Amino acid sequence: MRASRYLSATVKESPADAVIISHQLMLRAGLVRKLASGLYTWLPTGLKVLHKIETIVREELDRAGALEVLMPTVQPAELWHETGRFDAMGGQMLKMKDRHDRDFVYGPTHEEVITDIARNELSSYKQLPMNFYQIQNKFRDEFRPRFGVMRSREFIMKDGYSFHVDQECLNKEYDNMYQAYCRIFDRLGLEYRPVLADSGDMGGDASHEFQVLADSGEDYIAYSDSSDFAANVERAEAVMPAGERAAPSAEMTLTDTPNAKTIADLVEQFNLPIEKTIKTLIVEASEDSEHDLIALIVRGDHELNEIKAEKLEGVKSPLEMAPEEKIRDVIGASPGSLGPVNLPIPFIVDRAVTLLSDFGAGANIDGQHFFNVNWDRDVSYSRVEDIRNIVEGDPSPCGNGTLKILKGVEVGHIFQLGDKYTKALKADVLDQNGKAKTMLMGCYGIGITRIVAAAIEQNHDDKGIIWPDAIAPFQVGIVPLNAHKSPEVMEVAEKLYTQLQELGFEVLLDDRDKKTSPGVKFADMELIGIPHRIVVSDRGLADGLVEYKARKDADKSEVKLDEIIALIQSQTNR
Amino acid sequence: MRASRYLSATVKESPADAVIISHQLMLRAGLVRKLASGLYTWLPTGLKVLHKIETIVREELDRAGALEVLMPTVQPAELWHETGRFDAMGGQMLKMKDRHDRDFVYGPTHEEVITDIARNELSSYKQLPMNFYQIQNKFRDEFRPRFGVMRSREFIMKDGYSFHVDQECLNKEYDNMYQAYCRIFDRLGLEYRPVLADSGDMGGDASHEFQVLADSGEDYIAYSDSSDFAANVERAEAVMPAGERAAPSAEMTLTDTPNAKTIADLVEQFNLPIEKTIKTLIVEASEDSEHDLIALIVRGDHELNEIKAEKLEGVKSPLEMAPEEKIRDVIGASPGSLGPVNLPIPFIVDRAVTLLSDFGAGANIDGQHFFNVNWDRDVSYSRVEDIRNIVEGDPSPCGNGTLKILKGVEVGHIFQLGDKYTKALKADVLDQNGKAKTMLMGCYGIGITRIVAAAIEQNHDDKGIIWPDAIAPFQVGIVPLNAHKSPEVMEVAEKLYTQLQELGFEVLLDDRDKKTSPGVKFADMELIGIPHRIVVSDRGLADGLVEYKARKDADKSEVKLDEIIALIQSQTNR
Repeated sequence: MRASRYLSATVKESPADAVIISHQLMLRAGLVRKLASGLYTWLPTGLKVLHKIETIVREELDRAGALEVLMPTVQPAELWHETGRFDAMGGQMLKMKDRHDRDFVYGPTHEEVITDIARNELSSYKQLPMNFYQIQNKFRDEFRPRFGVMRSREFIMKDGYSFHVDQECLNKEYDNMYQAYCRIFDRLGLEYRPVLADSGDMGGDASHEFQVLADSGEDYIAYSDSSDFAANVERAEAVMPAGERAAPSAEMTLTDTPNAKTIADLVEQFNLPIEKTIKTLIVEASEDSEHDLIALIVRGDHELNEIKAEKLEGVKSPLEMAPEEKIRDVIGASPGSLGPVNLPIPFIVDRAVTLLSDFGAGANIDGQHFFNVNWDRDVSYSRVEDIRNIVEGDPSPCGNGTLKILKGVEVGHIFQLGDKYTKALKADVLDQNGKAKTMLMGCYGIGITRIVAAAIEQNHDDKGIIWPDAIAPFQVGIVPLNAHKSPEVMEVAEKLYTQLQELGFEVLLDDRDKKTSPGVKFADMELIGIPHRIVVSDRGLADGLVEYKARKDADKSEVKLDEIIALIQSQTNR
Repeated sequence: MRASRYLSATVKESPADAVIISHQLMLRAGLVRKLASGLYTWLPTGLKVLHKIETIVREELDRAGALEVLMPTVQPAELWHETGRFDAMGGQMLKMKDRHDRDFVYGPTHEEVITDIARNELSSYKQLPMNFYQIQNKFRDEFRPRFGVMRSREFIMKDGYSFHVDQECLNKEYDNMYQAYCRIFDRLGLEYRPVLADSGDMGGDASHEFQVLADSGEDYIAYSDSSDFAANVERAEAVMPAGERAAPSAEMTLTDTPNAKTIADLVEQFNLPIEKTIKTLIVEASEDSEHDLIALIVRGDHELNEIKAEKLEGVKSPLEMAPEEKIRDVIGASPGSLGPVNLPIPFIVDRAVTLLSDFGAGANIDGQHFFNVNWDRDVSYSRVEDIRNIVEGDPSPCGNGTLKILKGVEVGHIFQLGDKYTKALKADVLDQNGKAKTMLMGCYGIGITRIVAAAIEQNHDDKGIIWPDAIAPFQVGIVPLNAHKSPEVMEVAEKLYTQLQELGFEVLLDDRDKKTSPGVKFADMELIGIPHRIVVSDRGLADGLVEYKARKDADKSEVKLDEIIALIQSQTNR
């Protein structure tokens, strides 16, 4: 590509609402432009990156035996009524009426449509497993779209769905997709982690997220320092700590704590170690419980994990904190003074809490706490569960090493959906015995547009983007220096341009005229993030040399003109 | 691809609402499935064809210097208000409100969005010409979607838009795109014609359609039997016929014609040659005319061309036939008895009408006609225009040969839009003199999904589709005969399968077990339209032979096993 015939669309500044680096750099490097809130046009440079990602995704899924299809973006509402999600999706789903006043939606996802296809096209276990995918626009009407394409409304997703006659078949395909996803992210050249995840609203049983590591990520990932274990912090198990509970060393005392409304107050005013305190949180009980409320107790320095808690028997799901007034009515004290001793409702303690001795806890009397509480002697628990977020230093649930925490951007997610949709839509096949059987489903997503942003979050410096070779819009940039003064410079540049293209490289030749200074040309190439740059100059050619610089390295080097192509080939493994 | 792991989705019957052959075959061959009226899912076989078409389109447009972008499908209504098309597009445009109650549309086309991008990104004549394209879903809410993907609501289109500083620059790029389109349709392997077209609602000055020839096409194409001239019948000029008008041979007579309400009646009852009659059609005059109505006169055997007529000075546009009551008020006779003699309103005669002598025409008195009317002697015309559709046998407007008519399916359309959108959206650049200048635009569309249907309309027989090699879902099919009885048959088939794939062919190996009969396998391959078929059988292998058949040929042949790959290569020019 010649820069003079290209729309590079680089700009110096990004608007104030671009707060994360990938959003800023995607605007500055001319990858995208905002059309309206959460709606972006992909300009030539950005689209080249998108296409490369799509190609890698397609090749690996085809290799794994998945079949590509393409469903309409506009879907009839009837199917969403069949699964009950027409209302459940809420404001996120863009709804519309056609000219005949029939209800349609712009697909935020395609479980309904693909299951409709499966129930029509699949009739026998012999056709299974069958794994369909598509790469396509989705629309989710985010209340507050932000971070550019990271959380836009219209976006491109690879969504895949597999169908199975039994759980064994589903497990096998789930593993097949897990491996395919690893190959995809390996080939994209990104540092990532597949992590155990919660399957959230989608329902289902097993779930992994693929997280691209980046300091600005919104997700926290726990991983073992001594094994492959990794899980979303929301999902990582906090195992029973090793060791035994220390014996009581003092009598329990009831103490006036009029100014201690929080754990922090208590620790500060009474010189208590925070690990010797507990938090007693009151939530609504599930409908089938004897009591209206139930208490959840975690150590003072730990956080309740709502996702773990709401899955427990006796706890209302989704989790709902009890209103203060109701707590006062039932327990007779405010949230700042609650504890297990004399608590008139059932309670669940976190595993870490069971090891405490001589700890402080609210007395269920306003303005008073018990100090030196000890289990069994002063109060007993009947139920122990994992109800907290893990923290750095916790033992890894895999049994090897301790946990560390990283931040990541979720770019892929695989689920086992079970029969949630196939049951609702009656998607049966005949099994080996000729009996109708509801199919089981797996579901596999990749955020194609989001990968572009995640790649930039992970790979940039103060000059711009640093693309991995595999997804760079151009692999090589050529800058002829002061070509207007030297025809030879332009001749050599053109020759390299042609040769590299013939070898299959995508090359940007900056042939803009002298009104564009060399400094601007260098800055544009660094901003756009082209991995390999060749500078052709009069002075260099006098010695038979050109200059080479890898975008990721600080140093540049002088290379013999007749060796530069071999160097680029070796740098790119071609 | 192994048939056992594929969803071929072939079926015996197509539903009654599939009336055209491409619609029937696309359903029967498992290319698409209907989700709802005008909404289709592309199954694996269909999507393979679509992708091949997209790749060819992309390669040729990139080669021609166009830059690919990707705009959102969902567009803010504001832009459509700026050009006045929010209301003008009518029910065809799917409109919606987002969760904040703001108006959006699902883009039926993207002139507004691309012009918005151009006004933001292009500032100097030096950046021009700039030609952007995208390949993307569109939605047009057809009142009565039909013919499968030929006239669906959601469809995939390549839409392109070029920007220019002056008409010369636009003409050059228009020609560049014309050539690129020819290369695209050549490569697709379709018989097509680029034809002069009317630019219709889009506005603008020059326009060509690319028509794939097919008996079921909805468009009529006029072409010269002795030159390259071709034009949509709507648009083809009917030139002044050669020869001179014959002298009058009889006196004009007023004749009672009480039962002749139509030309056919007149011809039948009075033994008049139809070429010696005229039709006098009354339409509304344009607002600036002196009269309310104006008459248009064509020969009895010719059809009025409304598109030509409504462009004439003095004629209301869009054309509106006058209501009968108004005709009676103004002229004093009913539509069945009108003619130029004693007509109280102005009239325009078609070129062919000027050569008539001794012709019949209504007398503007109910139930009476004049016979043997002669121009100048009995009545004079003052205005001659081309206002009829051409017919086969007319002289070609290019001056060479006579016109013939074919039917075609419109699959591409290129326009010169001029400044229609750039003016409305104030898309200026600075010209050579540093002055702001409104850019000129060209617009270039290809109906990607429609090409699939058009290709089938042109290439099929009673067994199914006959794909051109370039867009076949698989180039080669391999059928191992009775493989369960002979391991060698399957071994040879597998080996050919691997070798052909390594050579870059896409191959369908029909490895379905013995429950699928050879007859079904052959029928499926013919229905799907795979261009080259190899049959491996025990009997053939005994003589070192396999069977080869080209889908388009009636005959099959025995080929030596070690020559079959070379044969396939030579058949496909690889």
